[in-house]
Amino acid sequence: MENVIYNHKSIRKYKPDLISTELLDKILTAGTRASTTGNMQVYSIIVNREENIKEKLFELHFKQKMVLEAPVLLTFCADFNRFSKWCLFRNARPCYDNFLSFFTAAIDALLVAQNVALAAESEGLGICYLGTTTYMASGIIELLQLPKLVVPVTTLTIGYPDENPCLTDRLPLDAVVHYENYCDYNKGSIDNLYAAKESLTQYLELIKINGTETLAQIFTEKRYTLKDNIFFSNEFLKILEQQGFMNNS
Amino acid sequence: MENVIYNHKSIRKYKPDLISTELLDKILTAGTRASTTGNMQVYSIIVNREENIKEKLFELHFKQKMVLEAPVLLTFCADFNRFSKWCLFRNARPCYDNFLSFFTAAIDALLVAQNVALAAESEGLGICYLGTTTYMASGIIELLQLPKLVVPVTTLTIGYPDENPCLTDRLPLDAVVHYENYCDYNKGSIDNLYAAKESLTQYLELIKINGTETLAQIFTEKRYTLKDNIFFSNEFLKILEQQGFMNNS
Repeated sequence: MENVIYNHKSIRKYKPDLISTELLDKILTAGTRASTTGNMQVYSIIVNREENIKEKLFELHFKQKMVLEAPVLLTFCADFNRFSKWCLFRNARPCYDNFLSFFTAAIDALLVAQNVALAAESEGLGICYLGTTTYMASGIIELLQLPKLVVPVTTLTIGYPDENPCLTDRLPLDAVVHYENYCDYNKGSIDNLYAAKESLTQYLELIKINGTETLAQIFTEKRYTLKDNIFFSNEFLKILEQQGFMNNS
Repeated sequence: MENVIYNHKSIRKYKPDLISTELLDKILTAGTRASTTGNMQVYSIIVNREENIKEKLFELHFKQKMVLEAPVLLTFCADFNRFSKWCLFRNARPCYDNFLSFFTAAIDALLVAQNVALAAESEGLGICYLGTTTYMASGIIELLQLPKLVVPVTTLTIGYPDENPCLTDRLPLDAVVHYENYCDYNKGSIDNLYAAKESLTQYLELIKINGTETLAQIFTEKRYTLKDNIFFSNEFLKILEQQGFMNNS
């Protein structure tokens, strides 16, 4: 188990081999064993395997090639629709069209996603999370016909690996763990905690290629920019409104 | 690995045995192997073991006894503070004080939490997620001294199990999986998908105890009520504002 966790690498190249229905059911069932708020299971998983829909998802997910290559795409959604319908058909008045309920359902969906990812990896499959799901939620909702109270929060590509990348570097454990209370960072501690990362050849190369002065500038100027963050923040908030999750009064 | 996933049960009674520092480091390290957006690791984990702080967390988490009993509490936070400080010290202008960045960091934190939960369980420890973290974020932020751009999203209690509950029921896989696009529910499908759950003795008992007509009414009238959901939605949105995550223009 821990070996699976420790050996996780995002896989972005897949063999054309399909995933059997039995195996897919097994890893999806592993997803449903995750903790879920009040055992409400306020999530849904959309499975995409058909070429024509995968092509449209490829367009939506910034044309990342692995979206086309992977035999299976799983879109994990915060979903209070099913639970609310159950309430309605059981003479109960659902009250889950608000921000807290969205976030509760998003937590549920993300714990399911990580269970599915690890179950897949323990079966020899490779996975990659797509961060573009929240950016492109509007197009995904339309394509996958998600009703009100359903919002996609993340996507996994899954398939048999056709590459074997190295483990990705991580900050030392001290960088992300605090004991008893939060101990804020200063120049000294940031320098210490990022020293190993900043000396890696791959990042020194990346700085050269990008023509920036520091690694951090690649993030702020190229990868996760102010303009994009503002734009997609407003898009995602609009989606929460549109899908009925912002009735907070 | 999959056995660990399949045998997950939330543990709410713990032995007084402490968790060794080595073991705690091991499961926290497992957390850091989770996928993380752009390898930014925009999360933090606050470890609480001291009695006096645990007592205050117990008060905040609706006095759930397991919060006092468990030797370790882990609060998982969406954290763009460290990354932003790194940017500032590296001549880069951080732009992560917006809603998209909050949600990105929350995804990161939740994947870490689920890795930690499974790593703990594979070591014979028991865990329970606390849904009260988002409700009581304000008090938790004050107690744990979380700076701007840090918001707690979930909490795990961890310790050696002193109970062995049965597996919790789940809806059939069909209830939560959709193929190619979302197939919305109607009276017939809801009846089918919830039939097994609704016939369980434990829920029939619960209906009797609560004096409601249906199981759904226990959720809408007692557990997750309109009044609470509205109140905590606004509280949590205020927290996002206060912690600096709502500068979306």
